[in-house]
Amino acid sequence: MLAEIITIGDELLIGQVIDTNSAWIAQKLNESGVEVIQRRAIGDNRDEIFRALDSIHPDTKLVILTGGLGPTRDDITKKTLAEYFGQELIFHEETLRHITNIFTKLDREVNELNASQAWLPSGCTPLKNMYGTAPGMQFEKNGVYYFSLPGVPYEMKALFESYIQPFIREKLTPDYQIVHAVFHTQGIPESILAKRLENWELNLPPQLKLAYLPSAGAVRLRLTARGKKNEDLKAILDAQSKKLRELLGADLYAEGDEPLEVVVGKLLKTNHKTLALAESCTGGYISHLITSVPGSSAYYMGGVVAYDYMAKEVALGVNHDDIVNFGAVSSQVVIQMADGARSVFNTDYALSASGIAGPDGGTPEKPVGTVWIGIATPTETRAYLFRFGNDRMRNIRKTALAALNLLRRSLNSLDLDDIDLPDLKSIVVSKREKMAN
Amino acid sequence: MLAEIITIGDELLIGQVIDTNSAWIAQKLNESGVEVIQRRAIGDNRDEIFRALDSIHPDTKLVILTGGLGPTRDDITKKTLAEYFGQELIFHEETLRHITNIFTKLDREVNELNASQAWLPSGCTPLKNMYGTAPGMQFEKNGVYYFSLPGVPYEMKALFESYIQPFIREKLTPDYQIVHAVFHTQGIPESILAKRLENWELNLPPQLKLAYLPSAGAVRLRLTARGKKNEDLKAILDAQSKKLRELLGADLYAEGDEPLEVVVGKLLKTNHKTLALAESCTGGYISHLITSVPGSSAYYMGGVVAYDYMAKEVALGVNHDDIVNFGAVSSQVVIQMADGARSVFNTDYALSASGIAGPDGGTPEKPVGTVWIGIATPTETRAYLFRFGNDRMRNIRKTALAALNLLRRSLNSLDLDDIDLPDLKSIVVSKREKMAN
Repeated sequence: MLAEIITIGDELLIGQVIDTNSAWIAQKLNESGVEVIQRRAIGDNRDEIFRALDSIHPDTKLVILTGGLGPTRDDITKKTLAEYFGQELIFHEETLRHITNIFTKLDREVNELNASQAWLPSGCTPLKNMYGTAPGMQFEKNGVYYFSLPGVPYEMKALFESYIQPFIREKLTPDYQIVHAVFHTQGIPESILAKRLENWELNLPPQLKLAYLPSAGAVRLRLTARGKKNEDLKAILDAQSKKLRELLGADLYAEGDEPLEVVVGKLLKTNHKTLALAESCTGGYISHLITSVPGSSAYYMGGVVAYDYMAKEVALGVNHDDIVNFGAVSSQVVIQMADGARSVFNTDYALSASGIAGPDGGTPEKPVGTVWIGIATPTETRAYLFRFGNDRMRNIRKTALAALNLLRRSLNSLDLDDIDLPDLKSIVVSKREKMAN
Repeated sequence: MLAEIITIGDELLIGQVIDTNSAWIAQKLNESGVEVIQRRAIGDNRDEIFRALDSIHPDTKLVILTGGLGPTRDDITKKTLAEYFGQELIFHEETLRHITNIFTKLDREVNELNASQAWLPSGCTPLKNMYGTAPGMQFEKNGVYYFSLPGVPYEMKALFESYIQPFIREKLTPDYQIVHAVFHTQGIPESILAKRLENWELNLPPQLKLAYLPSAGAVRLRLTARGKKNEDLKAILDAQSKKLRELLGADLYAEGDEPLEVVVGKLLKTNHKTLALAESCTGGYISHLITSVPGSSAYYMGGVVAYDYMAKEVALGVNHDDIVNFGAVSSQVVIQMADGARSVFNTDYALSASGIAGPDGGTPEKPVGTVWIGIATPTETRAYLFRFGNDRMRNIRKTALAALNLLRRSLNSLDLDDIDLPDLKSIVVSKREKMAN
């Protein structure tokens, strides 16, 4: 059984937006055991929608369309599908009630355009959109199922998970199965990781395939098992996952979908520890990651973004002479920043970062990409010197992940001295005096 | 004249990678006056490549294929194209020399697989790949031109710019032209914006089309003019852009590609003003946006993320009793937060935000989505009450954009009282006493 994805929107054809929806849908379909044979992007154009629907693969049983369901004039998917399936638009009372509810909660009035979203093709099954006003629609014709979803990613995803995934499980009985396991590492480049895993990877059973998914400062490893319905794929995957875990050791920071900020948040919460931040080059990004996790107020007290020299002195108590003598990007300064944040916010732990994110500000001794990260624990404060690359946003991201991973190591009582990362150049340890703090 | 883009690779159909190549190609084709009618992603599969090539639009004159040109067994694009165009693979001496050169520089030996890349379809024009070992290929059949490029983005881009762009200019003489203008608004929902622009939009000249591109808290408007080579499209676009600017008034915050943090940064820099931040519910996200702009240290001094109650008191000097009596999400508290940040960091302006991002923490009087934003200017401090939605990350994003837009209005000396946004519920003004600060 095959599936196809059709994304609709002029913006896709002029390259104004990158289509992330169809990659997400493809992944979900795959995980459900449905093979995607083609993805297409076409414009908000009646003839092209017709042409796409008329030219699906003969074995395609499932077509997912996204986009073109908004209330404005350029959105034509709904009326085009009505025409394609030979249906009229009829008024759907329940959808209007849902739209009205949404607007009432927002203290806003439903205008004519909003209300127009309650007109739906007569033969479709409307799919209630929990996060927006455009309902999804389900059609069937000649044994092929068509789902039309809005293009707004979080609306699309919620509808896919609420309606299409159960539909596949219950109605389509996919003829093969796929299981994945995902492993997260930080700070080790793909090529070095690949060398470490080489022997194991070459001896993987034929059902398994390993993929390297690198991003700034991190590599995800996806182990995919694909096989017939009756194979015990889970057992095969589990056995190799165990071996991979051993090979990754302390470098494995999470499995599944868990980002580093969630891992660290759970550790803080479980251990009843609190965190403060003192950020310079990361400019609030570490704080943003930490607070993107719901419930983070249980362990995160606050932080200072000390962008200016003076801010480091005034808000964190960094010694003026040390900034002048050693520079803002120095072990002395990040140690004082971490200690200052830990003291101001009265926490167990504090992270600090000061570096040259770029593109400007580099010197021969401290080129762009030079970053000191500080970590204050209940017993000591440490500073780690990293040498990242030239790209500002990647340096910010890499710094944040490296800092969070140091915190993870500390919370897990892992070795903080013996860390083998190619970007890590130096470690300075400052033991806390007994009476301080 | 139409163009199509076909990206080839199994990884696209399992959602392992997001296809950024075809958005880039679409944009470049568009800028060259070539309209893209369809983008497709298919697997490394002979039959699907045939099916895609057989089903191009009748008016398509240019087909760009990417991917599947690597040296490994799963890459089949080259031999499939040879078969499709009825050609044999022949040895291309110059390509082998190029491959050998690349490997010599890397101190590596050319193996059999690398050398196989010098075998090319007999009727193609090879396109020299400056950054890799897989040459591009150009074919022609029945007046349609086909270009096959490697999938590695920087190799693909170099080949596109070296061969395809000049080819379009010299050989294809596009028979129409396209020009765009993009306008950015914040805080006005798509449907309300559409109502405001309705009359104007209905009376647009036939060459023009308006598209609404909404994201959390913002809507971009794209005005596209499409017409014959000899038409003065620029003049038509400019005339309507002028009208649109009038209709948007103070709600238009930028044109072109400029995000709000860049707009605000430029205003601060030009006016030699400085900024501090005091964030609670946004958790450092506003600071992250501000510091994502290179050179922001010229105007951004620093900020406090006061996540905990105590942090608001200790780091920003918010009155303890006011937090107890009015709550952390109150006009009193955001005004003191903004004043505190402005004073600690000694700046001209400060923004503050305190709210309930969700999913937890809402009450009947202050449901999830309730946010107070404070802005301290050289003369006064104001607090704005917003009621956003239920999604944590969207609330954070919406709050950040609303805060930055208030700062933009203030820096542009726009009216700060008469702001008509559906999410804005209340405004409190606190005039600064003469001697304070």
